[in-house]
Amino acid sequence: MRIDLRSDTVTKPTEAMRKAMYEAEVGDINMFEDPTVLKLEEMAAERLGKEAAILVTSGTQGNQVAILSQTGRGDEIIVEASSHIVMLEGAAHAVLAGVQPRQVPGKRGVMNPDDVRAAIRPMIDPHYPKSAMICVENTHNFHGGVIVPNDNLAQLQEIAQEAGIRMHMDGARVFNAAVASGLPVSEITKYVDTVQVCFTKGLGAPVGSILAGDQETINTARHWRKRLGGTMRQAGVVAAPMLISLTEMVDRLAEDHANARLLAEGLANIEGVEINLDDIDTNMIYFSMKEDGPITARDLLIGCYHEGVMGGMMTPGQIRFVTHHEVTTDDIHKALEVINRVAKSKVTA
Amino acid sequence: MRIDLRSDTVTKPTEAMRKAMYEAEVGDINMFEDPTVLKLEEMAAERLGKEAAILVTSGTQGNQVAILSQTGRGDEIIVEASSHIVMLEGAAHAVLAGVQPRQVPGKRGVMNPDDVRAAIRPMIDPHYPKSAMICVENTHNFHGGVIVPNDNLAQLQEIAQEAGIRMHMDGARVFNAAVASGLPVSEITKYVDTVQVCFTKGLGAPVGSILAGDQETINTARHWRKRLGGTMRQAGVVAAPMLISLTEMVDRLAEDHANARLLAEGLANIEGVEINLDDIDTNMIYFSMKEDGPITARDLLIGCYHEGVMGGMMTPGQIRFVTHHEVTTDDIHKALEVINRVAKSKVTA
Amino acid sequence: MRIDLRSDTVTKPTEAMRKAMYEAEVGDINMFEDPTVLKLEEMAAERLGKEAAILVTSGTQGNQVAILSQTGRGDEIIVEASSHIVMLEGAAHAVLAGVQPRQVPGKRGVMNPDDVRAAIRPMIDPHYPKSAMICVENTHNFHGGVIVPNDNLAQLQEIAQEAGIRMHMDGARVFNAAVASGLPVSEITKYVDTVQVCFTKGLGAPVGSILAGDQETINTARHWRKRLGGTMRQAGVVAAPMLISLTEMVDRLAEDHANARLLAEGLANIEGVEINLDDIDTNMIYFSMKEDGPITARDLLIGCYHEGVMGGMMTPGQIRFVTHHEVTTDDIHKALEVINRVAKSKVTA
Amino acid sequence: MRIDLRSDTVTKPTEAMRKAMYEAEVGDINMFEDPTVLKLEEMAAERLGKEAAILVTSGTQGNQVAILSQTGRGDEIIVEASSHIVMLEGAAHAVLAGVQPRQVPGKRGVMNPDDVRAAIRPMIDPHYPKSAMICVENTHNFHGGVIVPNDNLAQLQEIAQEAGIRMHMDGARVFNAAVASGLPVSEITKYVDTVQVCFTKGLGAPVGSILAGDQETINTARHWRKRLGGTMRQAGVVAAPMLISLTEMVDRLAEDHANARLLAEGLANIEGVEINLDDIDTNMIYFSMKEDGPITARDLLIGCYHEGVMGGMMTPGQIRFVTHHEVTTDDIHKALEVINRVAKSKVTA
Repeated sequence: MRIDLRSDTVTKPTEAMRKAMYEAEVGDINMFEDPTVLKLEEMAAERLGKEAAILVTSGTQGNQVAILSQTGRGDEIIVEASSHIVMLEGAAHAVLAGVQPRQVPGKRGVMNPDDVRAAIRPMIDPHYPKSAMICVENTHNFHGGVIVPNDNLAQLQEIAQEAGIRMHMDGARVFNAAVASGLPVSEITKYVDTVQVCFTKGLGAPVGSILAGDQETINTARHWRKRLGGTMRQAGVVAAPMLISLTEMVDRLAEDHANARLLAEGLANIEGVEINLDDIDTNMIYFSMKEDGPITARDLLIGCYHEGVMGGMMTPGQIRFVTHHEVTTDDIHKALEVINRVAKSKVTA
Repeated sequence: MRIDLRSDTVTKPTEAMRKAMYEAEVGDINMFEDPTVLKLEEMAAERLGKEAAILVTSGTQGNQVAILSQTGRGDEIIVEASSHIVMLEGAAHAVLAGVQPRQVPGKRGVMNPDDVRAAIRPMIDPHYPKSAMICVENTHNFHGGVIVPNDNLAQLQEIAQEAGIRMHMDGARVFNAAVASGLPVSEITKYVDTVQVCFTKGLGAPVGSILAGDQETINTARHWRKRLGGTMRQAGVVAAPMLISLTEMVDRLAEDHANARLLAEGLANIEGVEINLDDIDTNMIYFSMKEDGPITARDLLIGCYHEGVMGGMMTPGQIRFVTHHEVTTDDIHKALEVINRVAKSKVTA
Repeated sequence: MRIDLRSDTVTKPTEAMRKAMYEAEVGDINMFEDPTVLKLEEMAAERLGKEAAILVTSGTQGNQVAILSQTGRGDEIIVEASSHIVMLEGAAHAVLAGVQPRQVPGKRGVMNPDDVRAAIRPMIDPHYPKSAMICVENTHNFHGGVIVPNDNLAQLQEIAQEAGIRMHMDGARVFNAAVASGLPVSEITKYVDTVQVCFTKGLGAPVGSILAGDQETINTARHWRKRLGGTMRQAGVVAAPMLISLTEMVDRLAEDHANARLLAEGLANIEGVEINLDDIDTNMIYFSMKEDGPITARDLLIGCYHEGVMGGMMTPGQIRFVTHHEVTTDDIHKALEVINRVAKSKVTA
Repeated sequence: MRIDLRSDTVTKPTEAMRKAMYEAEVGDINMFEDPTVLKLEEMAAERLGKEAAILVTSGTQGNQVAILSQTGRGDEIIVEASSHIVMLEGAAHAVLAGVQPRQVPGKRGVMNPDDVRAAIRPMIDPHYPKSAMICVENTHNFHGGVIVPNDNLAQLQEIAQEAGIRMHMDGARVFNAAVASGLPVSEITKYVDTVQVCFTKGLGAPVGSILAGDQETINTARHWRKRLGGTMRQAGVVAAPMLISLTEMVDRLAEDHANARLLAEGLANIEGVEINLDDIDTNMIYFSMKEDGPITARDLLIGCYHEGVMGGMMTPGQIRFVTHHEVTTDDIHKALEVINRVAKSKVTA
């Protein structure tokens, strides 16, 4: 048995996706001749409520192309302090785009609009960089798959529009937010100018992300994607499974959320586990082990690993479990059994 | 009928490649768990005679990652004036790596070693950037699929080593050079520190290039690939057809070269065509139409297009035809018939 | 009467400095022939306890050259969230050096060593940028001329050395810290690899800053200064007054500190003023006006301005006064009279 | 005796300049309070026929700020292959601005308009960077103080305007071109959008260059100057001698040109000297020594050096002499005597 709760990125292509790749109609994307890519970009744009969309090779590339297409060198972007853009993209925005990330610490990853407003610079003085963009991450990974509330998005949008600057959403998992909120995704993405959606997480595609926005920005994005080397030749083979993601994999995210809740509730009953059930918005669970409890987080994780249940250590003492389409409700029950058993027997790593 | 001689980039995946994608064993590349990618990188490194290799999403990305991994910001690279890096990568090396391309005009794309030696800067003066790398393109596209002679490579290598700088080959089509020269590709790539090979051209894969070099450089390259967003998740679906390229598509490049020669010889017999048969090294044919001839290059191209024979206009007056695995010897004969017929009847565009 | 307390940057060259410029022996700095510059760089290096020093045109340039000389593109620097580098250099480190500033909020501008240690990234994963440098600002401007305690510097140095990364001090006003602490400046700068000192603030020179550090870093800095256009030709005319700063203007900073304390104590007695006398470390005073007090900060500032006493508004509601060599103790008494008078009479702006 | 013909950059400030520094009225440039700087910028703008001007610390900084203010990252600038921007600015445009220099080889540094037109890229394809600027160098240093003819400038201007791109002049020595042509400098600078003029060469100021152009560009330039650290505090001490340059040092450049011609004619009579008198446009002389002549260029230079006559070796075998205000006609006669004597006696280095 192996129950892989390390991340929803581990998901492998489904049979339908493999078949779609096999059959994909393709062409040279540099000559705008790949029908599958064109179809995906059109469908994604419509679904996200934007004029246009562009296929990119990863979530990081989608975020970077968004920044490159909507800022000038030497500008400043306002971004939550523990967001993916700050923490996990190798400082790419600095080296590729030459922009400074102004890091606003949020509450569970949600920035206070007053803090964002205060961070915007007036262009009266060469000491200041130009504020060019507000970035939100929805759902927010490092705070546990947190849904950024729509009213927060509305307030940030108002601030951005007043300041005449752009707003981008790192929506790698925005479909999780939509499904959990019971909203069409476009009711969430309508607050931002551009949104990046990753198809290799809960949506299960092997490769690919989408950047959506207005036509002019996406036109510019084509130039930046080329510079980053993200223009895949017969990219239809990558786009084909992403079409399956859009048509077959969105609604079922609700199961992942239910499984996450089930797992969290089970964890809450295990001695030593510190978890806040109110923090489980979507498919992620962050929890820690009490210092004076029966077992440390590290030993728990290692013990579970040896029994086939895999999770991740995000910061020292903090475990993350993520549910996805390769984990069934039955798997959750089995995982809880394992965790329970391990938690009770002090493991020596 | 459609005979597409615009480029070898138009090639679609073969049945074997589609099947390989369908069946590919994959995993999360960020966790080093994709066996197909690992197998491809190992096989490619061995074939190219290098310690290590890394999968990238395109030839442009391979060249850029090579530059990023082997230069510092503010350095200078020495590169042939009409090479892909200068002409067709959106000035990426400048904006991503912050390096200046010192442009040495070559003869048919082959740089004179004396010119390269003269371009290397002594580090005695802050006025000068540091010379960091020599780049060669083999085969050279804009001069017609030209093979850079091995003794030229040997001389450049000697210059690079004396100066203590790196040497990179944009070997997007280096397998064409190898097959046409009757040499193992490693007998060509041995002259350089790093080589980029594109699998979506003559080798027919839908997506993907390889950058090969020493282990340390490839380790660094993993960081730069991540920043460019080129780290595809379950990239095995992309790597699987590339494995087919290596095992099934290399030797047959000889057919493309024979077809190119056949086409060139046929063109030489058509009135008004200006072509030098000695310039046909591999699978590319550049030719122009005499100014006082029966038809302009532009009209010829358009006329052929309407009869299903497609080529490219590279510079005003200059036509390029490229052979590849989807063009048979029979197609060449048919194409020549069409070209002949069109050349004789003045076309009005 | 005009008492300019806006900043210590408003100081004009003294008669001795003007005479030094007039008589300066100069030469072409690109040919290492300017004796006055060579003398300044040698004297500054010795005073700061470093192997070498380089003249730069401003504090911003000194900080940027330090970053450019000690980091690689795509690296991360760890820096206090409200420091000059983050707030007042136009995002230069991002656009010039391609580095990301990881912003650690400090207490009165002093970073907690635990926070700094936690911010350093392990180089195990391409998701992370390489941590390359810790930056401290001493004295810290935006928190009120705060002296960073030497034991904090020692702890940060230990962290930097353990991690094998560099440590830079934005010591624009480090001589204020030294004089206020009763220490030779080298007893403060010994904790860092490089230090930038600005001579146009309390030290009174018209133009120029110094970057000091080990010989190799300063050699590299010469290349970066050239790229930024900071290599002034006969720079001896700029260096000559800076030599006067070193020999005549350091010890007298004690007067500025005494004046600042005098002014702060006077302010504390004015109705409506909110000020913490414990926060006055050197020559800066930040204070605000009670919301329910007799007058707003803005009106106070405007009222004083019309009577010849000038200060600055740093954030809405917060006034900054800075003492320097053109403000005498007598001026402080006069200024307090004015402020007192204005505070008592509601001003309409 | 020492006659320094290495460069016009070696010139030291005149007595009038030293006096001007001594007396300069200054203020904090960041608060727009330096009257001498304001006066210089106004006078320079008017003289150069532009709306506005900005003081920068060097010619390199002026060129870089011009590029940063008029291009976007990833753009391409078209520039003569042996110009200062390509050869002597440490690849700064690449690392600071992220632009690629497209290097057009000129004839004596003067680009053929057809070559420039051919180098401009259509924005139809993400493979291409955007062409953003044409750069000319006038007078052109590495080809010997060459005056770019006004009709060439007019043609390039027309090309730039048709393409909707900018045109910048590295006019470090444009006053030499103006004086030698008998034209007001504005009759030359009218062909370009921005011009950089260096005051530390023939104009004799110790420090400083001017960038002039339209108001909007110069406003943007203030932001970029700040980022490069070029905003000198009480910069009036630097601006004061530059005002003397404008009022007292321009017309006398004619003497330097006459001296250069005198020197060139004298050289032409020395055995072994290879010089083309038609190539002496302004104050620079490039010449070489015949291979089978009595003495090599290197030995000639060293021999002269030991007798107090200093020149520069630009490329192996090529000597440069530059005249300036510290070299009199009498010095030229003396220098010729020395050169003659040395040329006749084989020197062993």
